[in-house]
Amino acid sequence: MKKSLIALAAVAASGAAFAQSSVTVYGVVDTSIAVVKGQDTVSGMLNSGAATSRLGFRGVEDLGNGLKANFVLEGQVDPDDGTAGGFNFRRQSTVGLAGSFGEVRLGRALTASYNAVSRYDMFGTVGLGSTLAWSSAETGYANRSNNMISYISPKFSGFGVGIDYGFGEQKENRTARYAGIGATYDNGPLSLGLGYDKANNGLSVTGTEDLTTWQLGGSYDLSVVKLAAFYKETKYKEIATGDSEKLKTWNLGVSAPVGAAGVVKAAYNHYKLSDSSAKAQQFSLGYVHNLSKRTALYGTYAFLKNKDGADFALNGAFTGAGLTDSGKQQGLQVGVRHAF
Amino acid sequence: MKKSLIALAAVAASGAAFAQSSVTVYGVVDTSIAVVKGQDTVSGMLNSGAATSRLGFRGVEDLGNGLKANFVLEGQVDPDDGTAGGFNFRRQSTVGLAGSFGEVRLGRALTASYNAVSRYDMFGTVGLGSTLAWSSAETGYANRSNNMISYISPKFSGFGVGIDYGFGEQKENRTARYAGIGATYDNGPLSLGLGYDKANNGLSVTGTEDLTTWQLGGSYDLSVVKLAAFYKETKYKEIATGDSEKLKTWNLGVSAPVGAAGVVKAAYNHYKLSDSSAKAQQFSLGYVHNLSKRTALYGTYAFLKNKDGADFALNGAFTGAGLTDSGKQQGLQVGVRHAF
Amino acid sequence: MKKSLIALAAVAASGAAFAQSSVTVYGVVDTSIAVVKGQDTVSGMLNSGAATSRLGFRGVEDLGNGLKANFVLEGQVDPDDGTAGGFNFRRQSTVGLAGSFGEVRLGRALTASYNAVSRYDMFGTVGLGSTLAWSSAETGYANRSNNMISYISPKFSGFGVGIDYGFGEQKENRTARYAGIGATYDNGPLSLGLGYDKANNGLSVTGTEDLTTWQLGGSYDLSVVKLAAFYKETKYKEIATGDSEKLKTWNLGVSAPVGAAGVVKAAYNHYKLSDSSAKAQQFSLGYVHNLSKRTALYGTYAFLKNKDGADFALNGAFTGAGLTDSGKQQGLQVGVRHAF
Repeated sequence: MKKSLIALAAVAASGAAFAQSSVTVYGVVDTSIAVVKGQDTVSGMLNSGAATSRLGFRGVEDLGNGLKANFVLEGQVDPDDGTAGGFNFRRQSTVGLAGSFGEVRLGRALTASYNAVSRYDMFGTVGLGSTLAWSSAETGYANRSNNMISYISPKFSGFGVGIDYGFGEQKENRTARYAGIGATYDNGPLSLGLGYDKANNGLSVTGTEDLTTWQLGGSYDLSVVKLAAFYKETKYKEIATGDSEKLKTWNLGVSAPVGAAGVVKAAYNHYKLSDSSAKAQQFSLGYVHNLSKRTALYGTYAFLKNKDGADFALNGAFTGAGLTDSGKQQGLQVGVRHAF
Repeated sequence: MKKSLIALAAVAASGAAFAQSSVTVYGVVDTSIAVVKGQDTVSGMLNSGAATSRLGFRGVEDLGNGLKANFVLEGQVDPDDGTAGGFNFRRQSTVGLAGSFGEVRLGRALTASYNAVSRYDMFGTVGLGSTLAWSSAETGYANRSNNMISYISPKFSGFGVGIDYGFGEQKENRTARYAGIGATYDNGPLSLGLGYDKANNGLSVTGTEDLTTWQLGGSYDLSVVKLAAFYKETKYKEIATGDSEKLKTWNLGVSAPVGAAGVVKAAYNHYKLSDSSAKAQQFSLGYVHNLSKRTALYGTYAFLKNKDGADFALNGAFTGAGLTDSGKQQGLQVGVRHAF
Repeated sequence: MKKSLIALAAVAASGAAFAQSSVTVYGVVDTSIAVVKGQDTVSGMLNSGAATSRLGFRGVEDLGNGLKANFVLEGQVDPDDGTAGGFNFRRQSTVGLAGSFGEVRLGRALTASYNAVSRYDMFGTVGLGSTLAWSSAETGYANRSNNMISYISPKFSGFGVGIDYGFGEQKENRTARYAGIGATYDNGPLSLGLGYDKANNGLSVTGTEDLTTWQLGGSYDLSVVKLAAFYKETKYKEIATGDSEKLKTWNLGVSAPVGAAGVVKAAYNHYKLSDSSAKAQQFSLGYVHNLSKRTALYGTYAFLKNKDGADFALNGAFTGAGLTDSGKQQGLQVGVRHAF
């Protein structure tokens, strides 16, 4: 009833009057104080140490006959500077139709390949403790695609599959073209995930490479402790020359409840480049203290050691910190995560 | 009661404490898959094939004595890439006061001249099937103005008038200055609209022209079929030389319900430049299948043929497709429109 | 229950499932027509003549035991052009924890020093009538800091204190580093405020200066009339040379209710640069007519006179207007402020 006449006029020609729906406004604000030590010691404020700060709008409409329409518009927020780069909806902007057949979704979103395996990082792929396996800055891997049409299957006995195709941006449809698949199995304490995806140049660091990624992982919840592990292998193929190299990441993680409100967690990452002996090891330790289901205090410590020419840096670390002469970097982060 | 102390403090000096109001969050997510064929054949994802994707915030406050205050903040959303250019409120950002006298509105909005006539495009001025009459990219016409003060009359026996004045941006107030008027008559099955507007340079394609536009249109709803037509004539006057040319657009449209949920529609556009024999014809065919009042599936086919040097392209078509040697372009678009 | 699975998946690794909360969407749309006369006379539309136009999202969560979590994401809106520069949350983006100890808040926000004293400007630091004391354009002063950790004390017998520290952006943590304190006393008709802050280069006009500011003010409400005054002194120290100069601002203000819905107000500002005889005087007169608690019409007249080489301009005035040969500028602004 509150629909503005303007809005009605604008869409009237397309043959439909729209009823008012309920839109859910949701998000996270997560901010922390951090110290990172490499060549230099830098302290300051970092965003999103335990979950990515965001603001989103979403809704579901029941179309009858088991069919539902949904939309999500979600953008990243940088509380440290008020999102100086400008707000957008590049975390997710999709419209979908869901039914007994599963869901078909159009727009920009996380890929099924990434979703299937990234969930085994004990640090949720954010903050200083995060694995670098999917770090855009460190690996050129993109966990989202533009122009994506996705199919997400219903769950059969714990099995689910997601298939994504992202159209390219350019005339010849090659640049930034994406295709991928993710499969998951979740049954009681056991969880498994498998992903495969291929991103044509435009998503790579240099913009001149094709990236092909295999990844798999799993977790087992023993109640007193939860174990997780994943392996990711991305092949970077130089389009011009055909030369390629691989980045292989191993991750082992563990978490355990501490008292009624706390969770302690640890992870080990091993990164290795195939065409050199360059490699790095990372150890992360974290504690999350839940003040409620929506709000938590957290602390994370991470240590990274590069070898043989590798120059990885901790996820989201101050760039000014750099690495020690022996290729080391460590960081400490204490913050608050509030979801709404 | 939830008003933050910060917000209160910031406005306290202006002499008022604000009560909480109800804000309506609304919008559209419309995404489609399209193929466009000209010199090349390009397929990919296009936004807003049946209605412009958007997110908006609006509200109305009853001030008593028949007076109401209202606001609208509405911005475009590009679901294909998550609005990579950044979100803003350039679709509409206004505050208005409405009463028995009509409404006075300040800010950026669609013009009355455009609103009066654009409603006769069967394709709602969006998607591949849209008329190019008001296309900013193809004609330099701007359907919105910044810095606009608007008066919208109440309806008298179906008659209504809107008057707009948009202040210029520059010192001398000439650049981007706008003035226009739109008149409408809506009575049962008959609808008529008339618009006149003048936009000083800054709104034109080259930024060195004044645009003067006459436009009129109408529709008649015979229930089994709805007929519509409009004519638009824009004169482009080169400020430096005084030279001018005109672009004339004719449009004929028809739509008809198909079953309980479908609407089929077709339109013919004819574009002609006065200072040359350059012209183009466009034929558009569309089908909209309403899954609910808010959600629809749609398909659009459009064909465009340029003659004598004209180089129009279908509205929103992939730029990489180009035109055939004989100046043709065609496109097919299938998508989903979801309003919330 | 409406929580999307995507959002849950994204944060699941951090050890918490989030319940839905109530988010308040709020804001202001304030637009005006103005005429400014200096060297030239320029008329047009100005934003935010009585309160800064904005859109915000905020919420509070009760954590039990007297502890509360809160967040605010608030961005400026420019209704004249629909926020052409892009929407963000640079007015405020914070997460906070509040209890009997006061509140600790992380993110970008107004500083306590500014909040303590700026409230004594009768024109709310916006519009043509505003003091220039805190004008970023005229003084280089920043009333907000990025990367800020803030402590806001509870009120003791009307006394309150806020302490802010803003981390720098650069490696050495100097650029844009901020530290400040604000103290307030509010007791019945009497209100006092005191602020001190220091902003390292990056916040100054030239980016090569350190700014140190002392400011204090107060107001007394006699019911039939309210009196206010403040003094602000900012020292600009050239980092390279050590040279410094001071800008001193005196302000006297008065406001009085007129009838049931009106408020008339006036203010006098005196600006003086210490290293020259450059100075300026400003007189502002305003009337606010409240149509409701949320909506008001307002009119403001301001007159500014520069002397001995000063070149101040009215707050937010059209840049094209300039100053008369004798350094004068005056402006008139009539608008509507609507809060939601």
